[in-house]
Amino acid sequence: MRQLLAFVLLLLGAALPASVRAETGYDLWLRYQPVEAQWRDRYAALVTQVTAAGGTTMLVAAGELRRGVAGMLGYDPVRRETVIGDGAVVLGTAQSPLIAPLGLPLAKLGREGYLIRSAAIGGKRVTVIAGNAEIGVLYGVFRFLKLIQTRQSLDDLDISDAPRLAVRVLNHWDNLDRYVERGYAGQSIWDWQKLPGHKDSRYTDYARANASIGINGTVLTNVNANADVLRPEWLARVKALAEVFRPYGIKVYLTARFSAPIELGGLKTADPLDPQVARWWKDKVDEIYRAIPDFGGFLVKANSEGQPGPSDYKRTHAEGANMLADALAPHKGVLMWRAFVYAAENPDDRHKQAYTEFQPLDGKFRDNVLVQVKNGAIDFQPREPFHPLFGAMPKTPLMMEVQITKEYLGFATHLAYLGPLWEEALQADTFRPGKGSTVAKVLESGAATGMAGVANIGSDVNWSGSQFDQANWYAFGRFAWDPQAKAEPIARDWAAMTWGNDPAVTGPIVRMMMESREAVVDYMTPLGLGHLMATGHHYGPGPWIADLARPEWNPVYYHKADARGIGFDRTATGTNAVGQYAPEVAARFGDRKRVPEQFLLWFHHVPWDYRTRSGWTLWDELIVRYDRGVAAVEAMQAAWKPLAGKVDARRWEEVRDFLAIQRDEAGWWRDASIAYFQSVSKRPLPAGHAAPAHDLDWYKAIRTPYAPGNGK
Amino acid sequence: MRQLLAFVLLLLGAALPASVRAETGYDLWLRYQPVEAQWRDRYAALVTQVTAAGGTTMLVAAGELRRGVAGMLGYDPVRRETVIGDGAVVLGTAQSPLIAPLGLPLAKLGREGYLIRSAAIGGKRVTVIAGNAEIGVLYGVFRFLKLIQTRQSLDDLDISDAPRLAVRVLNHWDNLDRYVERGYAGQSIWDWQKLPGHKDSRYTDYARANASIGINGTVLTNVNANADVLRPEWLARVKALAEVFRPYGIKVYLTARFSAPIELGGLKTADPLDPQVARWWKDKVDEIYRAIPDFGGFLVKANSEGQPGPSDYKRTHAEGANMLADALAPHKGVLMWRAFVYAAENPDDRHKQAYTEFQPLDGKFRDNVLVQVKNGAIDFQPREPFHPLFGAMPKTPLMMEVQITKEYLGFATHLAYLGPLWEEALQADTFRPGKGSTVAKVLESGAATGMAGVANIGSDVNWSGSQFDQANWYAFGRFAWDPQAKAEPIARDWAAMTWGNDPAVTGPIVRMMMESREAVVDYMTPLGLGHLMATGHHYGPGPWIADLARPEWNPVYYHKADARGIGFDRTATGTNAVGQYAPEVAARFGDRKRVPEQFLLWFHHVPWDYRTRSGWTLWDELIVRYDRGVAAVEAMQAAWKPLAGKVDARRWEEVRDFLAIQRDEAGWWRDASIAYFQSVSKRPLPAGHAAPAHDLDWYKAIRTPYAPGNGK
Repeated sequence: MRQLLAFVLLLLGAALPASVRAETGYDLWLRYQPVEAQWRDRYAALVTQVTAAGGTTMLVAAGELRRGVAGMLGYDPVRRETVIGDGAVVLGTAQSPLIAPLGLPLAKLGREGYLIRSAAIGGKRVTVIAGNAEIGVLYGVFRFLKLIQTRQSLDDLDISDAPRLAVRVLNHWDNLDRYVERGYAGQSIWDWQKLPGHKDSRYTDYARANASIGINGTVLTNVNANADVLRPEWLARVKALAEVFRPYGIKVYLTARFSAPIELGGLKTADPLDPQVARWWKDKVDEIYRAIPDFGGFLVKANSEGQPGPSDYKRTHAEGANMLADALAPHKGVLMWRAFVYAAENPDDRHKQAYTEFQPLDGKFRDNVLVQVKNGAIDFQPREPFHPLFGAMPKTPLMMEVQITKEYLGFATHLAYLGPLWEEALQADTFRPGKGSTVAKVLESGAATGMAGVANIGSDVNWSGSQFDQANWYAFGRFAWDPQAKAEPIARDWAAMTWGNDPAVTGPIVRMMMESREAVVDYMTPLGLGHLMATGHHYGPGPWIADLARPEWNPVYYHKADARGIGFDRTATGTNAVGQYAPEVAARFGDRKRVPEQFLLWFHHVPWDYRTRSGWTLWDELIVRYDRGVAAVEAMQAAWKPLAGKVDARRWEEVRDFLAIQRDEAGWWRDASIAYFQSVSKRPLPAGHAAPAHDLDWYKAIRTPYAPGNGK
Repeated sequence: MRQLLAFVLLLLGAALPASVRAETGYDLWLRYQPVEAQWRDRYAALVTQVTAAGGTTMLVAAGELRRGVAGMLGYDPVRRETVIGDGAVVLGTAQSPLIAPLGLPLAKLGREGYLIRSAAIGGKRVTVIAGNAEIGVLYGVFRFLKLIQTRQSLDDLDISDAPRLAVRVLNHWDNLDRYVERGYAGQSIWDWQKLPGHKDSRYTDYARANASIGINGTVLTNVNANADVLRPEWLARVKALAEVFRPYGIKVYLTARFSAPIELGGLKTADPLDPQVARWWKDKVDEIYRAIPDFGGFLVKANSEGQPGPSDYKRTHAEGANMLADALAPHKGVLMWRAFVYAAENPDDRHKQAYTEFQPLDGKFRDNVLVQVKNGAIDFQPREPFHPLFGAMPKTPLMMEVQITKEYLGFATHLAYLGPLWEEALQADTFRPGKGSTVAKVLESGAATGMAGVANIGSDVNWSGSQFDQANWYAFGRFAWDPQAKAEPIARDWAAMTWGNDPAVTGPIVRMMMESREAVVDYMTPLGLGHLMATGHHYGPGPWIADLARPEWNPVYYHKADARGIGFDRTATGTNAVGQYAPEVAARFGDRKRVPEQFLLWFHHVPWDYRTRSGWTLWDELIVRYDRGVAAVEAMQAAWKPLAGKVDARRWEEVRDFLAIQRDEAGWWRDASIAYFQSVSKRPLPAGHAAPAHDLDWYKAIRTPYAPGNGK
């Protein structure tokens, strides 16, 4: 019997099976896990009670503070005493009777700014979290909680902050049937079938997460939209969401299909200069504002990729945008008009078309129009030079659109922190009007300002499809709040809030994050290559694809590899896309010797035996980069392995699995790309670099028709 | 200051905001919440340690017991002692050295049965959970945990149980792009894009839930399938799921598209008598079994609603099924062949077509074929008479297919417990071969036996789209285990396990459940009406629809309302569908005076002024029933309201919201149906019954193109 039981115990020796309450990632960076004992004692003395008075946003702010303190410090800071004691945290606006006497320097912080300051009230040492409006207080509360989450001191606080951009919006490419175009995290979280009758508690958690990083708007619907969301029964659902979001300072926006007056209104035209059309839009906008008094406005994709627009009536983008802007203006609504246009009939370099079409319209847009320009001129590639429109439309408010969802960076299973990509774009110097005119400064300089991120949010329990993709949502919020921000400290904050404060954990995680995007560039599109993904879904490599109807749909259009070399000549000898940049930038990009090597093949067709700065031939350098990318993924796997047991098992295993998938797919990219380019270059691989595992036909035969997120 | 803070405390007086750890329903009926103190003491004395030895299923069984005990009793029952003490729970098979000497009567329990018995081992009082195979032990563990969950005594246990049907399978109508046909709970939980590299922990929880109710198989893919899942890269993913499910006694099955030899094999035909076709299937089946040695088999929908099948080659269903069955037989695989057929070119009553086509084939199917027959002859309506094939094919194993997902009963937001529907079908007397030959007995009598349920499972955090729809998944497992089971005790078990043991909670919940299905019948399709739902998605009423290409797609085909009366004459003066039943049944169904009133209009065209048993005219009775249905929903709302605070807030609020939606939609059904039928009957409403809120055109104009679950 003794022997038997010994055997039994061996079997059962494993830890108790993970509870169903295991960490799923649902909590995002708002985990509020208990702090270590020594920190708890320090913090508890400074957070003894919470006082607040005001409206629903103040209630939300106080509630979040209670939730955070309950989670991290283990008690509810609401006290039944009716006097303020030492350690009180006082929430209020500038007008609050407790705050006003302190004479805090709130004036310059605007409606959304906040101030956190250690102070004395009635002889008691307190912490004040104050704003000009309640939303500032909520932002301040999240900042205060972050201090605890990241183990900062709460003594002698004197923090003030305010957003540098006004419109900080997510763009959900969500269809009304819950399909998410370019979504890799399940379905749309908008469960329209149950709205407005049931408001899923997830909507509130969505609002909390966004408010915690300063996002103040959300476009609920896909830019490739039909007009149905503007019907009354859908507006009732939108209203229900707006009511959930309002206390969190988040406005709802909708995409407006330009042809809606025809489809919904029964008009014969959507010509923006037709008075009936303008009237229809004005009535529709008024109807929306009756239901949603703080409605944000519209986002429009017009005359691009088949969408209707003003060009259908020989009108300009400005004429189209202004008509809608006029309908919104009486309600203080904003019109976001995308500059992402390229036309089937236009044979010019796709890189140039947005600039060509929009730049001449500078100064022609209404004040409440924001022209929404992607970070690069093509389409959210792993690396692109900054869009030439930045700096080129000084009389027009420009906002930047980035893609949080990783359409071109491996979907949810590739770890790729996008902070460095966005920092690179924002810090790019446009030289317009002069040196130092970074994209970030251009964004901040408009009469209206903003930044849009295409959301990576879906119904997956972890929201983003992977734990690490949460970091991209987080980072977007931080950059939209402050385009001058830096990717690494954002990564550090996120890692500590999401994975805990152990430097043995956050150190490797931040290093993985900071190297991850460059790894993707290397194994997918090194040296300035781009848009080589397979057709439609963009999953996996397809550099050989040459048979699609429109030239710019084909990867061969972008790499132009031939027996002589590879790359797209966008210099004066080619399409002269460089001519759309400021002369200083054009001179640099246009000179093969001066162009940053990371953009070499973006702007130049380069012979295979060209010598790169490392001394390799271009061909050999390409191979080296592909292998470097794969090796970087293997390094991430090696860095992650020792974190087992240091982070919770479920999330650790998910990341482990995804890194293994990423390694496999990085190898697929590397092998398929080399097999194809070698069929063109006819060159041997440099010594020490392995041949692809299969021949080119094997890679060409791969079909993945069910890859998620394809437009439909 | 004092006054100020008093105001503040008022604001903050609410309870701490619900934690993100609030109950979501993810835990299903396996919540394992702490038992009350008095129960804990009683149970703890009888569960002091767990011993087990064996393979992976035994590990799973022991792990589940540890998890349940940890949750409900608060400790881990694994002890480091190496001797058995009082209160040990001993898990083992008949061959286990600790079990064998006890001489337990396991022989008749089969491979999946189990026995739970209080016993003595080495002079110690223990509880033995034993089976002939490890899966029986796992089933026994779930039963043992249920005793605790439902607060039964653990003293002097002597329980033995075994399933009465062999094949107990879920049918997932899940497409490879994660769209779920007739799914109202989000996407498919099969995240194919991440398989096989990542096995979501949800797959394990799915297996646990199914094993806990005895489900032993799952068909992963939609019956309306293409052949892609049979490709090698997909079989690798299926294999990964099979590996997760195997320790839980769950086999995977796939749908087989009959034309796969053409689409995948490049053959010119899929004729089942063509040797090349048979060879292709044999090779494919062998390939599957090399990857998945315990693969369950295939489910086939052939020659129905456009699917390919043997009739395309002038072969019978038996010839088609047998060819596939022969390929599966060497591996002990099962072929499930659906009898749900009706043909575009067949003008006969749809009710009759399956019987007409299949009954003559009785005795012609291989032993490993199960003909899968829906509970009724049409299609999962709120109420249907039992399918005439039951009892009519005594030489052919028949399994019953029911729909757990509520395609025709209001989707996820209508509370409708299906236990009574299934009990009604299973207890129906076929009179074949004689009185007392219930459908349940027919199912149990086959050489092979089984029951299939079309799953209501999706990616929603609560699995089923609503809390109460979990009960239908639960009940399906219980009925498949024991077709003689009764709906009410199943509801009681589920309510206690899911909502807690307070009779003040479970009492109202069980009453709501037991009355809920009849409510749906009343407000949608009273008195034997059926199939009056709107086209395609089947969301909401469409009794007026008459313009679809095939007659049997139109609701008017089913109700046949005219100036004279309403109902489908299926007697000898009509289509004589009653003639397909046994004479005793036919005589009853075919006689307007004897037919159960709940089937009146299913079998008879009845004048509007016909007197029902209550003494009303038929027209007035219809109105009374519609109103009774709406009132029943209002009664559920009233019953639910006082449970606030007695169950957790998040689930309570969800149910409250859904009941309100159900009330609205019940009213919509009632009003639209009355408005339409009144346009035909030209009769006034009886006194005291309100006119519809709108005119008929208003209801006809309602369009809900984004309603979920429509086939595509």
